[in-house]
Amino acid sequence: MLETSSILLNKAIDCFASLPGVGRKTALRYVLHLLRQSDEDVDAWLGTVSRLKHEVHYCKRCHNISDTEICPICASHHRDQHTICVVETIRDVMAIENTGQYNGVYHVLGGVISPMDGIGPKDIEIDSLVARVQGGADTPQEVILALPTTMEGDTTNFYIYRRLQNIDNLNYPIKVTQLARGIAVGNDLEYTDDITLGRSVQNRIEFKA
Amino acid sequence: MLETSSILLNKAIDCFASLPGVGRKTALRYVLHLLRQSDEDVDAWLGTVSRLKHEVHYCKRCHNISDTEICPICASHHRDQHTICVVETIRDVMAIENTGQYNGVYHVLGGVISPMDGIGPKDIEIDSLVARVQGGADTPQEVILALPTTMEGDTTNFYIYRRLQNIDNLNYPIKVTQLARGIAVGNDLEYTDDITLGRSVQNRIEFKA
Repeated sequence: MLETSSILLNKAIDCFASLPGVGRKTALRYVLHLLRQSDEDVDAWLGTVSRLKHEVHYCKRCHNISDTEICPICASHHRDQHTICVVETIRDVMAIENTGQYNGVYHVLGGVISPMDGIGPKDIEIDSLVARVQGGADTPQEVILALPTTMEGDTTNFYIYRRLQNIDNLNYPIKVTQLARGIAVGNDLEYTDDITLGRSVQNRIEFKA
Repeated sequence: MLETSSILLNKAIDCFASLPGVGRKTALRYVLHLLRQSDEDVDAWLGTVSRLKHEVHYCKRCHNISDTEICPICASHHRDQHTICVVETIRDVMAIENTGQYNGVYHVLGGVISPMDGIGPKDIEIDSLVARVQGGADTPQEVILALPTTMEGDTTNFYIYRRLQNIDNLNYPIKVTQLARGIAVGNDLEYTDDITLGRSVQNRIEFKA
């Protein structure tokens, strides 16, 4: 269905419909929008996407997306290089950066351990994390686990924790923390799920006025 | 907000965010999807969109999108060339084609008369419609007005009707019709708006068993 009289148009619709969450009707809307733009604008559009794909780097240290070999966060002297926040994707880096509450560096795993999907510890950037912690004078003091609160995230947290504990030649024990879990700001108690509410009672913190 | 550590990435996000209904978060999702594809796949993707933009034609007769100078519908001997359905956009052509209920040809106006938006009769393909009706031996017998049921659509309907009535040298009076308006199939009476329901009482049709 939604066949058009133009093979070129059909193919372009197929292209856009391959994007996540885009069906053929939305794809058609995008394509018709591009058709209404000038040739120069569309060529600039395509050029920008092409340049991104061919010229973008991933930071050699933290695997975040970057225009340079080492990303601006890892290269910055204003960031605390002794605190590493471990996240699943570069989107998580952006989310945490947007809070403005974190001044350390990151380590992007590129996934979480998920035996069901055939993703083991070797398929994500865990070895390079261990190497970062192990390596040289700049040993980090704290590793913050900021993976998703799913079974796969918990498994990965546990695996990383064990790997970090088993590093022998550290000068001092490394501190491993995880993000606080509890009731989201602005949420009603009655609409909070049982597990979250139960845990937030267990892990209650001292009231600060 | 949602700034990333890569200028290339930011620019690509801006590109996708210029599509209709796409915000920066959705744009990021699209861009990250493309980044996960192979270089060849992305190049093929970009090539297809580029080819569409540079090689697509609009049918010289009906202004529908086409790979050739005359679109397959206008060129077909199986279609009734004496009935012209006037629509606003090529999306409307697809919608009517999908019903499988129409065997005539089309005329795509590319818009409707809208003084508020500065769109007058000269800005859309009305003159070429009149020329089609006027021209030669192949005079159409019926013009179906299938424009949106808005004030702008009604204005355009009325304008086209007057223009068609004022054509002098026609061999026979041209029949001008519009799409049936009434209660949509599957809709409850109580949720149908007053104007639609009122008109469908006025314009009731004989019951056919």
